[in-house]
Amino acid sequence: MIDGQTALFGFIAHPAKHSRSPRMHNLSFDYWGLNARYLAFDVAPDQLVGTLAGIRSMGIAGVNLSMPFKQTVVPLLDGLTARAQRIQAVNTIKNEAGKLIGDSTDGAGVFQDLQHQGMRLTNQHIMVLGAGGAGKAIIAAALDYNVASVTVFKRHNERYAGVQQWLDQLRTTTTVPLKLCAYEDQQRMQQIACTSDLIINATNIGMTTAGTPLPSAIIRQLRSQQTVYDVIYQPLETTFLRLARQQGCATHNGLGMLIWQGALAFEFWTGKPMPIQQVRQDMLASIQALPLIAAQA
Amino acid sequence: MIDGQTALFGFIAHPAKHSRSPRMHNLSFDYWGLNARYLAFDVAPDQLVGTLAGIRSMGIAGVNLSMPFKQTVVPLLDGLTARAQRIQAVNTIKNEAGKLIGDSTDGAGVFQDLQHQGMRLTNQHIMVLGAGGAGKAIIAAALDYNVASVTVFKRHNERYAGVQQWLDQLRTTTTVPLKLCAYEDQQRMQQIACTSDLIINATNIGMTTAGTPLPSAIIRQLRSQQTVYDVIYQPLETTFLRLARQQGCATHNGLGMLIWQGALAFEFWTGKPMPIQQVRQDMLASIQALPLIAAQA
Repeated sequence: MIDGQTALFGFIAHPAKHSRSPRMHNLSFDYWGLNARYLAFDVAPDQLVGTLAGIRSMGIAGVNLSMPFKQTVVPLLDGLTARAQRIQAVNTIKNEAGKLIGDSTDGAGVFQDLQHQGMRLTNQHIMVLGAGGAGKAIIAAALDYNVASVTVFKRHNERYAGVQQWLDQLRTTTTVPLKLCAYEDQQRMQQIACTSDLIINATNIGMTTAGTPLPSAIIRQLRSQQTVYDVIYQPLETTFLRLARQQGCATHNGLGMLIWQGALAFEFWTGKPMPIQQVRQDMLASIQALPLIAAQA
Repeated sequence: MIDGQTALFGFIAHPAKHSRSPRMHNLSFDYWGLNARYLAFDVAPDQLVGTLAGIRSMGIAGVNLSMPFKQTVVPLLDGLTARAQRIQAVNTIKNEAGKLIGDSTDGAGVFQDLQHQGMRLTNQHIMVLGAGGAGKAIIAAALDYNVASVTVFKRHNERYAGVQQWLDQLRTTTTVPLKLCAYEDQQRMQQIACTSDLIINATNIGMTTAGTPLPSAIIRQLRSQQTVYDVIYQPLETTFLRLARQQGCATHNGLGMLIWQGALAFEFWTGKPMPIQQVRQDMLASIQALPLIAAQA
């Protein structure tokens, strides 16, 4: 029951009303008996400054952010965690007595999910397909898990040089080998795909079409010791994951990432773990009730 | 169940956490099955501008305001209802597609309560004790109910001339006779008390002491045809109300005003009436569970 003491958390994005984050966090507040509620706010792209003023002035305890605010919010904050600093993007803000601290839990969400499902990450070779927002978050988070290497494939377009530059900077902060390869270099792609322990799709290929982020000829060479992760969770099994599963690979959709990015935010705010199993069941039920559409946290 | 579509309403004040408004409005949202929640926000006195920015930017659907913001908010709004205009104070804001419209429902709350309890207000002579925020709201609202006259008693202190001036202005908008008398003029007070149909205490005398806003010698002259209203609801029966009841007067505490100011705000926001009986029961239960303290909406 809401009373005068109830703390407010929120989701700030545009669009925002489709978000499943309110369900996830409210279920978790209820689980722990915390007097707090989480609502979604559809904020127009030019209204971020006013929103931050509101968060500060009204003492809103914390928010998640999604498109189009993850990067534009950075200069408006009072501090960043190391992983948010690395990617200069934020999906979580904690209001610490008026100081707004930004964190990025998207990338770590993938690795927390995999660890939680029993995968050892230390010394593993990781292949990341795509270097947009999700890809960068995953690449930067990988450095916190003592992996053996991270090899990134991205289209050789106008953003390629910028990603190269970003990786150069990142290299100064880590001993983990970081490599960038052109998505069009299929020979290299085949070689890395076959020698990686974990292949992560961080593109949106497979969300609205039956396409795959790796050519099916390469997918057919994968072996059962390899793990394949797709950040997409709608559909729950993309063509990529289905084909990889048919090779005997361990496969994981992006639902775990969605839940764990929320769980890490929840823990950042409350100090308590999210009840993962209950949240997963609720998410699954809500996703299966929906048509196939592009989906966001 | 909160989801991405849930609309947010709020209470903005300092202090705010004691407020019973969240209970009242959430109960009413539930009653109508509206997908909306109401939370309290303790806003520091210098943080009103940021709060208004947040309300606009985040699309917060409506708020109530209390001390110390009822007057300072006026220049920050896009429009005022007539009754808010009259007292240049606002306790309710509606966000109409980005335009913030201010209303004042405190004064009308008294008269809605009385009408709801069967009192006819047309052509009644009204005595108001006190001309602070509550007093002014009640005086201004009385003009909407075709009353015969309003006579105000207030201490002859440094604010007396200001109230006189305000009444002079108000007179230009109404044919209802408005009179201001010094609280110290006991002869006048006795005369007006004995000839008024409705006597309203809008001071806080009786909230924390056994004192009465009319001398007990005057109260003992009241007759059973008269109605006595006290804006105080904690205690539920002040000494003033008890003595008036012993004279046979119909007596009403401020709980109805508290509920009806909320009901008018709720209707302003949602177009639906508040379920008064359910809210009253819930309020009574929550008030009786509390110690005697100064209380606000």
